[in-house]
Amino acid sequence: MSHNSDTNFADTGERIMAWADTLARHTESPGMLTRTYLTPAHQGAAQQLACWMEEAGMQVRRDQAGNVIGRYEGLEPGAPALMTGSHFDTVRNGGMYDGMLGILLPIACVQRFHRQGKRFPFALEVVGFAEEEGVRFKATLLGSRAIAGGFVHAVLDNADDDGVAMRTAMRDAGFDPDCLGSAAYAPASLRGFIEVHIEQGPVLLNEGVPVGVVSAISGATRFAVEVQGLAGHAGTVPMAGRRDAAMAAAEIGLFIEQRCQDIAGLVGTVGQFQVPQGAANVVPGKAVFSIDIRACRDEDRDGAVADVLEAVRRISARRGVDVAVRRTHEAPSVPCAPRLQQQLAASIERLGLPLRCLPSGAGHDAMALAAIADVAMLFVRCGNGGISHSPDETMTAADAATAAQVFSDFVEHFN
Amino acid sequence: MSHNSDTNFADTGERIMAWADTLARHTESPGMLTRTYLTPAHQGAAQQLACWMEEAGMQVRRDQAGNVIGRYEGLEPGAPALMTGSHFDTVRNGGMYDGMLGILLPIACVQRFHRQGKRFPFALEVVGFAEEEGVRFKATLLGSRAIAGGFVHAVLDNADDDGVAMRTAMRDAGFDPDCLGSAAYAPASLRGFIEVHIEQGPVLLNEGVPVGVVSAISGATRFAVEVQGLAGHAGTVPMAGRRDAAMAAAEIGLFIEQRCQDIAGLVGTVGQFQVPQGAANVVPGKAVFSIDIRACRDEDRDGAVADVLEAVRRISARRGVDVAVRRTHEAPSVPCAPRLQQQLAASIERLGLPLRCLPSGAGHDAMALAAIADVAMLFVRCGNGGISHSPDETMTAADAATAAQVFSDFVEHFN
Repeated sequence: MSHNSDTNFADTGERIMAWADTLARHTESPGMLTRTYLTPAHQGAAQQLACWMEEAGMQVRRDQAGNVIGRYEGLEPGAPALMTGSHFDTVRNGGMYDGMLGILLPIACVQRFHRQGKRFPFALEVVGFAEEEGVRFKATLLGSRAIAGGFVHAVLDNADDDGVAMRTAMRDAGFDPDCLGSAAYAPASLRGFIEVHIEQGPVLLNEGVPVGVVSAISGATRFAVEVQGLAGHAGTVPMAGRRDAAMAAAEIGLFIEQRCQDIAGLVGTVGQFQVPQGAANVVPGKAVFSIDIRACRDEDRDGAVADVLEAVRRISARRGVDVAVRRTHEAPSVPCAPRLQQQLAASIERLGLPLRCLPSGAGHDAMALAAIADVAMLFVRCGNGGISHSPDETMTAADAATAAQVFSDFVEHFN
Repeated sequence: MSHNSDTNFADTGERIMAWADTLARHTESPGMLTRTYLTPAHQGAAQQLACWMEEAGMQVRRDQAGNVIGRYEGLEPGAPALMTGSHFDTVRNGGMYDGMLGILLPIACVQRFHRQGKRFPFALEVVGFAEEEGVRFKATLLGSRAIAGGFVHAVLDNADDDGVAMRTAMRDAGFDPDCLGSAAYAPASLRGFIEVHIEQGPVLLNEGVPVGVVSAISGATRFAVEVQGLAGHAGTVPMAGRRDAAMAAAEIGLFIEQRCQDIAGLVGTVGQFQVPQGAANVVPGKAVFSIDIRACRDEDRDGAVADVLEAVRRISARRGVDVAVRRTHEAPSVPCAPRLQQQLAASIERLGLPLRCLPSGAGHDAMALAAIADVAMLFVRCGNGGISHSPDETMTAADAATAAQVFSDFVEHFN
């Protein structure tokens, strides 16, 4: 295929993989990759990114949120920018491509443009968002929200596990939390935002497709559920008189699984499930579990949520248990801009690659950027069953090369 | 009804309840009833029981297991005995009738016989079994097993939570673990064993019947089950590709519940159910749960166990998960002797009470005694939904009186 015959992009793919290896050395925990907001490892990674950006021909600055921003001027200095980027913080014991690929790949592409002397009618800005995962301060998307003008100032009071407030950590790292507003971009300064990211799932892998166009970042609804039944002796309480909290929870869980089958882009998960202080010889009097329902189309999610809540009522009434359902999270779907999806699709087809559109079930920085710009996402195939947030996360240099070629083509044809 | 018109038994019922109140003061934990093997509270309760036995006209001794044994001689001294009794240890924060009723009620009945000058062609022995619940040393039925000659000497090395070995605790309390064999009864010395016990379940309560004749102590099979699936991101792994360990466990649990419906005396319970380190946004890669299946007829239990294991295989194969099933307990059913059941039934009918036979889903000291004697059990109605092993355990003085009248009639007609 044409994209594999281009040896320059093969080199680019290798370079991206080598950079990911190098960047992964900036970790808080030897033997694993953990890099949370504003720790020394995090600051070291930021410095490394800034160095590569400069070598690639960009002007680099850091904003007051700690984001690393490289700007590759267009044909006319000061032109509005096509922004790209992703995050360089990680979960604990995470993978080395989640987030990082979306910074390193554009830097490598800008490096090629720079060497080729290519400039465009727009600037290119590559952003390393300083925080997305929410690990250290229990608040997510801090970097992209600052740029989108959506930083929630209340979280500055959040403290890490050592009791250090975010506000203090920012000051200690040389940033001014009182000037976070200066990080915000005006919508008119941006022509759009595109995020390259590993899929963090198995869809592209299972279908043998290297890249995919994201249709939307799924909306999500989460519930914490507590079932109160009646505890009893496992030997002496006949089946007919039982009010078993765990079996009520099991039935609700299987309903969720069944209800979310067969609708593309809809998923439902019971990730937590526990009988507190359960004993083998006691009929469970209490069970707690979580519900997570996501869909790329809000109407699919709303429909599933309504049916699940109705099933909770029906099952709890029939079984004589009380169910307390608390909504813990609610976020609408963020659609990717059709015009940008079309341009990404055009690049993929020009390169002779199969076109696969898919939703993103996970949240990404593009969600925050959607407040001020049209957004798009290019997914890159994961190895290893699609595992992410784990040291087992993998991808190939060949796929990095392919994605770099798609990204470059997209930029060259962007309008 | 005739049994309520007998004011002597009303007094007897009140006495039993008052004794239970007094005995409950012997506890390790103020504000709740916890009394485990050979603690000072346990020794205090033993002394109190011995005192009431002596006042009721019995000769009292303690054996080397700490059992309290009161003997009411028959018409001819040294005659074989009809033995009765239950345990005076408790679970943590337990109820005050579980076990104790089966000691106090016979003492009260012997007291009446003694006052009336009644002697029988057999001796009556009332035993307070020192240990049944297994709380302190993680081994159950210690008292009744010693008397039945079935004490497992290996458990003498078991240690309590403070590291004190059972052997040491026995010596410190004045008993000789090397002479435990002396506690064993020869089968020829016993005419039978009858245990009075609260039902610890809701059957008699729901049917409005004060006492019941136990047909058998259910056999039990327990499994510890571990399901290994594939963890994944709750947003990015489509439903179709999932290998969700928790949903496999839920489906197995509901199969057990369904399979154990509709067969009298058969019960199946998933008492423990957990997704270790579960998170709302992660598809469970692992789930652990327990299975407890009991039936009064071994063939019912064997059939249910076989079907459940087959369902485990079927469900795990379909869902692509691995299930490790470990059998942790296996005990056959202990039938109550038909001749003793018939004599109990005759007493109940003579007193004009409704006759209800039912299995015991819980284990009792009579299980151990079955090794050396025909056994029978008389269940007494619980209040409060049948709750036991809890401070919410209740019963009424009227039911204590009724049960005492049935027990006395049984003894007077025993042959």
